[in-house]
Amino acid sequence: MKKAIVLLSGGLDSATTLAIARSQDFRCYALSIDYGQRHHVELNAAQKIAQSLGSHNHQIIKIDLTTFGGSALTDQSIKVPTSGENPGIPVTYVPARNTIMLSLALAWAETLDCRDIFTGVNAVDYSGYPDCRAEYIQAFGIMANLATKASVEGKQLTIHAPLMLLSKQEIIHAGLALGVDYSLTVSCYQADEAGRACGVCDSCRIRKAGFKAANIPDPTAYKAN
Amino acid sequence: MKKAIVLLSGGLDSATTLAIARSQDFRCYALSIDYGQRHHVELNAAQKIAQSLGSHNHQIIKIDLTTFGGSALTDQSIKVPTSGENPGIPVTYVPARNTIMLSLALAWAETLDCRDIFTGVNAVDYSGYPDCRAEYIQAFGIMANLATKASVEGKQLTIHAPLMLLSKQEIIHAGLALGVDYSLTVSCYQADEAGRACGVCDSCRIRKAGFKAANIPDPTAYKAN
Repeated sequence: MKKAIVLLSGGLDSATTLAIARSQDFRCYALSIDYGQRHHVELNAAQKIAQSLGSHNHQIIKIDLTTFGGSALTDQSIKVPTSGENPGIPVTYVPARNTIMLSLALAWAETLDCRDIFTGVNAVDYSGYPDCRAEYIQAFGIMANLATKASVEGKQLTIHAPLMLLSKQEIIHAGLALGVDYSLTVSCYQADEAGRACGVCDSCRIRKAGFKAANIPDPTAYKAN
Repeated sequence: MKKAIVLLSGGLDSATTLAIARSQDFRCYALSIDYGQRHHVELNAAQKIAQSLGSHNHQIIKIDLTTFGGSALTDQSIKVPTSGENPGIPVTYVPARNTIMLSLALAWAETLDCRDIFTGVNAVDYSGYPDCRAEYIQAFGIMANLATKASVEGKQLTIHAPLMLLSKQEIIHAGLALGVDYSLTVSCYQADEAGRACGVCDSCRIRKAGFKAANIPDPTAYKAN
């Protein structure tokens, strides 16, 4: 059975990505990163999702990106925007986050002799993050195929981004067809300790709109106002 | 004054790289990674070097790569080879280490609005590590220039690898000319708590040969046999 590393944040997209990898007969090694994120409760969600979708293994690696800050998700003094979409890259962008996560996935892949990494990045219903674009993922793949012992031995590594060109609505339909329980997922940037969502941050807005467009009842638990 | 992130392991090469960056009038932000390395005493050396070479700031980021293992430096059950050079990539190779370190440097660079990263990788007197080659560094640079908010804003990031084509002997001469105190540096993969070197691991052998070729007295403190 082929192995795959699946980056699993605990949100809707990465849960769907894990289900897709499983449906392609990969033995999945889920990897979550505890980077000091404001919404660290997503890591509890990641554990439940890994279990419910039959991940073979799940590791949570700790790395404190609050040392660098520079994002509303890693610096408590920067407020999470809640007034809807604004032009430009939002303050919830975490510098180099996907590069760091994919690098850790690459390290684990090499120790497992695994040649497939899955990420839930998406360039359609996203928040304008530069490291969610197809050209970025492609460049990471080229770099990764020069970085490792495996690459020197001629073993090709593939970065799979199966959601790249899907709308949130399409992602939800794909996930439901594969048995994803979206009530387990946490997308909110400022979810409370119970995983309840604010409903008004960019991530909540995009998720809400996705369920609406998909014509599926939104299973998200929201905080009382 | 231009800012630069300088990856600083505590070894001979990265100390020289910091001195070179300083000589090019960069305000230097040294970055060391506590990744669970066997020779964690190199981090004490990094602190002394950062101070002695006038680094503006020095951060040590902790990330536990022993979770993945796969290297004699991150898995205590794998012995560090001491019998001299062997063909192929040695077991001291740490999967994706430079990719992880450069990714963290990229994150810090972005939060500081800094466009220069220095790494001491070297493709001449090295240990056959794939992530020390020029084509790898070039590919990382291309990826990094697609990964960040800065790149979307048209700000170009440069990965400097000033030692890439130098022999160890040339590195030592360059460092001495810039005032590097090599007695502060620790290269040994199994240095003891006082930073004393074994003298027989690959890293010690390459370093020793470098001082010999440079015709410079070796300032390394060795363990008693």
